Amino acid sequence: MATQIPQKQWAQVIEKTGGEIQYKEIPVQKPGSDEVLVNIKYSGVCHTDLHAWQGDWPLPTKLPLVGGHEGAGVVVATGELVEDVKIGDHVGIKWLNGSCLACGFCQQSDEPLCPKPLLSGYTVDGTFQQYAIGKAAHVARIPKELPLDAIAPILCAGITVYKGLKESGATPGQSVAIVGAGGGLGSLALQYAKAMGLRTIAIDTGDEKRDMCTKLGAEAFVDFAKSSNVVKDVQAATSDGLGPHAVILVAVNEKPFQQAAEYVRPRGTVVCIGLPAGAYLKAPVFESVIKMVTIKGSYVGNRKDSAEAIDFYARGLIKAPFKVVGLSELKNVYAKMQKGEIAGRYVLDTSK
Amino acid sequence: MATQIPQKQWAQVIEKTGGEIQYKEIPVQKPGSDEVLVNIKYSGVCHTDLHAWQGDWPLPTKLPLVGGHEGAGVVVATGELVEDVKIGDHVGIKWLNGSCLACGFCQQSDEPLCPKPLLSGYTVDGTFQQYAIGKAAHVARIPKELPLDAIAPILCAGITVYKGLKESGATPGQSVAIVGAGGGLGSLALQYAKAMGLRTIAIDTGDEKRDMCTKLGAEAFVDFAKSSNVVKDVQAATSDGLGPHAVILVAVNEKPFQQAAEYVRPRGTVVCIGLPAGAYLKAPVFESVIKMVTIKGSYVGNRKDSAEAIDFYARGLIKAPFKVVGLSELKNVYAKMQKGEIAGRYVLDTSK
Amino acid sequence: MATQIPQKQWAQVIEKTGGEIQYKEIPVQKPGSDEVLVNIKYSGVCHTDLHAWQGDWPLPTKLPLVGGHEGAGVVVATGELVEDVKIGDHVGIKWLNGSCLACGFCQQSDEPLCPKPLLSGYTVDGTFQQYAIGKAAHVARIPKELPLDAIAPILCAGITVYKGLKESGATPGQSVAIVGAGGGLGSLALQYAKAMGLRTIAIDTGDEKRDMCTKLGAEAFVDFAKSSNVVKDVQAATSDGLGPHAVILVAVNEKPFQQAAEYVRPRGTVVCIGLPAGAYLKAPVFESVIKMVTIKGSYVGNRKDSAEAIDFYARGLIKAPFKVVGLSELKNVYAKMQKGEIAGRYVLDTSK
Amino acid sequence: MATQIPQKQWAQVIEKTGGEIQYKEIPVQKPGSDEVLVNIKYSGVCHTDLHAWQGDWPLPTKLPLVGGHEGAGVVVATGELVEDVKIGDHVGIKWLNGSCLACGFCQQSDEPLCPKPLLSGYTVDGTFQQYAIGKAAHVARIPKELPLDAIAPILCAGITVYKGLKESGATPGQSVAIVGAGGGLGSLALQYAKAMGLRTIAIDTGDEKRDMCTKLGAEAFVDFAKSSNVVKDVQAATSDGLGPHAVILVAVNEKPFQQAAEYVRPRGTVVCIGLPAGAYLKAPVFESVIKMVTIKGSYVGNRKDSAEAIDFYARGLIKAPFKVVGLSELKNVYAKMQKGEIAGRYVLDTSK
Repeated sequence: MATQIPQKQWAQVIEKTGGEIQYKEIPVQKPGSDEVLVNIKYSGVCHTDLHAWQGDWPLPTKLPLVGGHEGAGVVVATGELVEDVKIGDHVGIKWLNGSCLACGFCQQSDEPLCPKPLLSGYTVDGTFQQYAIGKAAHVARIPKELPLDAIAPILCAGITVYKGLKESGATPGQSVAIVGAGGGLGSLALQYAKAMGLRTIAIDTGDEKRDMCTKLGAEAFVDFAKSSNVVKDVQAATSDGLGPHAVILVAVNEKPFQQAAEYVRPRGTVVCIGLPAGAYLKAPVFESVIKMVTIKGSYVGNRKDSAEAIDFYARGLIKAPFKVVGLSELKNVYAKMQKGEIAGRYVLDTSK
Repeated sequence: MATQIPQKQWAQVIEKTGGEIQYKEIPVQKPGSDEVLVNIKYSGVCHTDLHAWQGDWPLPTKLPLVGGHEGAGVVVATGELVEDVKIGDHVGIKWLNGSCLACGFCQQSDEPLCPKPLLSGYTVDGTFQQYAIGKAAHVARIPKELPLDAIAPILCAGITVYKGLKESGATPGQSVAIVGAGGGLGSLALQYAKAMGLRTIAIDTGDEKRDMCTKLGAEAFVDFAKSSNVVKDVQAATSDGLGPHAVILVAVNEKPFQQAAEYVRPRGTVVCIGLPAGAYLKAPVFESVIKMVTIKGSYVGNRKDSAEAIDFYARGLIKAPFKVVGLSELKNVYAKMQKGEIAGRYVLDTSK
Repeated sequence: MATQIPQKQWAQVIEKTGGEIQYKEIPVQKPGSDEVLVNIKYSGVCHTDLHAWQGDWPLPTKLPLVGGHEGAGVVVATGELVEDVKIGDHVGIKWLNGSCLACGFCQQSDEPLCPKPLLSGYTVDGTFQQYAIGKAAHVARIPKELPLDAIAPILCAGITVYKGLKESGATPGQSVAIVGAGGGLGSLALQYAKAMGLRTIAIDTGDEKRDMCTKLGAEAFVDFAKSSNVVKDVQAATSDGLGPHAVILVAVNEKPFQQAAEYVRPRGTVVCIGLPAGAYLKAPVFESVIKMVTIKGSYVGNRKDSAEAIDFYARGLIKAPFKVVGLSELKNVYAKMQKGEIAGRYVLDTSK
Repeated sequence: MATQIPQKQWAQVIEKTGGEIQYKEIPVQKPGSDEVLVNIKYSGVCHTDLHAWQGDWPLPTKLPLVGGHEGAGVVVATGELVEDVKIGDHVGIKWLNGSCLACGFCQQSDEPLCPKPLLSGYTVDGTFQQYAIGKAAHVARIPKELPLDAIAPILCAGITVYKGLKESGATPGQSVAIVGAGGGLGSLALQYAKAMGLRTIAIDTGDEKRDMCTKLGAEAFVDFAKSSNVVKDVQAATSDGLGPHAVILVAVNEKPFQQAAEYVRPRGTVVCIGLPAGAYLKAPVFESVIKMVTIKGSYVGNRKDSAEAIDFYARGLIKAPFKVVGLSELKNVYAKMQKGEIAGRYVLDTSK
């Protein structure tokens, strides 16, 4: 049972917001009494990490900072109060590293709304290092038969779109439009929707994305660049022409949002899950009222959502394309991300 | 049982959108097989009637048109299919005069969303006449012990705010902010909220409105004109400072709406029930997502909501101040309405 | 468009409860103003028909009676108020032939709870005849590309189990145990559950049923006759050993019911959808309270449920094995039913 | 801030199930890192305490045992991980002393269903002592202006009936029958129901109880001993004669339970919250199915329910009659309880 924990480890460290990211050796921390130390094997790279580095969100980060919040690995040490998680267990460290578990929001299973959250790779050090700390009650349990590289993107992107779909209130047999279906979040949303018994309309552009979406189960594809009337085309893609019961916007921009509020079915729900800095929701009052439209923001999943999203993955219903590179190459990944050159997810191997 | 139904009756008739309204004698109609003929005793006057006359909503009216959709009266004739409503029953004719009762929306109790609605005083003749026709399945049942003048405003304003409160999802013991609490809709919303076990924060301006709101049960009053920080003041009015669980906007303007999206509690709901022509909802994406805020349009109530709203009134829990004038004076009422001089509701006595 | 409607037709008529059923010619009726006349092509035979004939339910039937409530056919005449249904449309006549559409239950989409229901083949003549009458607002709309023989059993058995699954509150990814999974209702329940994103545990007996259930998507099969501990085995079939989130009992007997209340997961729901005469639900108070178990009766679906259940079928997700015989052979079908010799559904061809 | 914590304290100790209860001095414990030590000022006495002593529930107790689970007092020491609770805070120790906060049930806010619960006065020492230990995340927060003797019964009885009312699904304006409305739990249920906007029908016997129920807001009273037909009388007490939307059974016996399943409105819910040893729920399948009745067990409230129930009390909406005697007199209280001589709650003053 004795696990060799080194004194030092490799990590990607941000010393200053927007400054150089340094790949260097830093000390390995010890877990507190309600925490675990996780030997991170793989960590996904998310757009949020870019925001954390660049500091363009209205919420300051810890500094110096080790980013990353899609880490999958093996528990190597546990605090003395920890009962349920054992050394050797496979776990994930997510965006929500910890919460107080005592406030009104935690009491109602809305841990992501806890006013004292610990955010991995943002307000506490994250998973771009070999040994990361997580609150025991919050680490995601990963069945041992699952590959730790493939599951990394599920820990943030997967859970987030799954949560958005739940928040939409759409029930089996109803239709959901996914705006940005051909991207990383979107393609996960398509698959989760299908696994949940929902019918999907993919909205994106280009034949390559059309093919991919169709393969992933989309019953219709609307190319927003080629369509002369997106609103009509989306509504026409539903069996009765009244529009989808829900819309998931994985990357909220003003125009797609306004269109969504127009083509959604009366009594339908538009869910926003992306976090573009500075963007606004805007919808006409008159139509929203007489159609009784609901517009909702959906943040990351709680612990229950996380367990469920992982369970769908474990059942083989979700495939997330990813590419593995070494932890040392994070800078290159960011560069590609900034150029919008990434399709699918990059996953860092912390041993390289 | 023989009720004397005259051939002719007095009515207020709009021949042309925005044109002169004529008070004149017109023929009394006969009900179809699934309809009832109602001897309207009193009819409330609503802002919607003004919109119908002026034609500034994106939906054309019937012409010539008899306006009005808050009519209370006595059934004097019934079609041959009508079983549940009897001659002599007291009933109300509401905005939703009829719906198909067969489409997907009617099937799910969302009659107001029926794509083939009959709208009183808009697409079918309304209650500014002595004898109006309503679909039997849609007329509101009014217990005979209730006064027909006082209940008229409940038939539209009361039901609408009650519906909005239901749509907010707020549960007994939770707090609701009412924006425009000192107005006609607002003061009804305050009373319904209290009767539903909700705690209320009234938002409006002026000492007179403060007094009225307090008398009607508001636990706090925020004067938006005097407050230097409405968002902070509303949040401070909740016991834990986190803001109200729901906000009801009875008259949506952009600034109050944006403030509502800010001060509402995380996971809270902002409900818009007014229908200002040309207005827009606008909210920041980032804050809406991380607070998981819901924004909803709520239209008029369905038949069930209507029965419930009337039941609260019948139990003596709702008082709606109103002033009775003759049907012949409609023009004067409109003139006052346009000048914003009306506090409480005007109710027309069709016998004068 | 002129459809030739004959004066006379063949029908199976019960003159006296429990008496001889007569196959004979009777007059074709005319539809009332809100009704349609349907040329029934096929009608399923349900256990309820047997109860109607034998009169062992605490609710008397019309006499003389034409039974049957799973009829699929073509509209040949419509009453003058009927707008949405056209001559030539394919429709289904279900157990709930009509309801008042005005009472509190109809108002809340619970038409099956209407205190004045018209029940096909029970309080009004049903579908064991060539021309049957249905209320236009209640007939099920059947897309023309669907086979009328195959859909007949969906109109009662399919809708009923789908409704039961909805009432269970189980959400995609959760597990449902189906008690009696190898029978007619049970095998439909298995397929609907799968299409709704649920994971299923089939409970029945015998290798033949095991094979069928597995083929239909059951993730586990518990043979109640071979199991030495059904409660333990069902719980062991769930991934965390805590038991299924819901249980659907298609044929309620006391023992299976009590077991269900034991193996269902805390906070889980046991749904009873069968109607055995004289049976009782029985569950220990202590365990039910500390596990917060819910026990629910689920009756037939409303119009919305019906449309949804047909939609799942139309998408090719549901297969219901059936055998077609002539309408004239109803007596033989009843005889087999009474001996318990029927696997799958019998469907009568009214042309034979 | 230094609070003097003694080494020894007075407590009521059960050495052996069913044996003598000893009032004696025992050591004061020290809180663990996630616990608080509470100087209990007052503790209510509940029927459960009697069950714990007599061992007639199918769940063994800790031995030796200090009973009691309705304790209100002042925090005198906190473990090193405790952040939200401070020395000097007023808190309550409830039946659910602690739970793991990590399992699937804790994750979904169903802490009472946690498979590893700590139960005050049952599996851990309770509040029949001067210094008791509670998990910090679980102690109820009590505003300092509330009297600690009066709130003690709220901490168990109040929360439990409030939870039962929430579980009933009844919404403001709907009617709830309270069976046993004149007893301790029942009279609290009446008051909570009223505060939640519900209309109540009290069911109990005797003129004294009738008067009390009426004073507490019951709109009708049915005397089950005098009524010749309880089912009819309860239904007649609802405005449309269809029966109450929900029934709360605070003390489940077979006959009242079966009656409840009969008089409850179609689609209504019967909630059982008492825990009589060995009792059974029993209801006819046929009627339960065609009325779509729901039967539910409701256990104690979770932390959110507890905070809400206390909030209703803090607003002055709930009065619980109680009588204070010294901790040393517990035996006498039990004796009265066993004879059924107690109306209202006994509260022990730990200083005597």
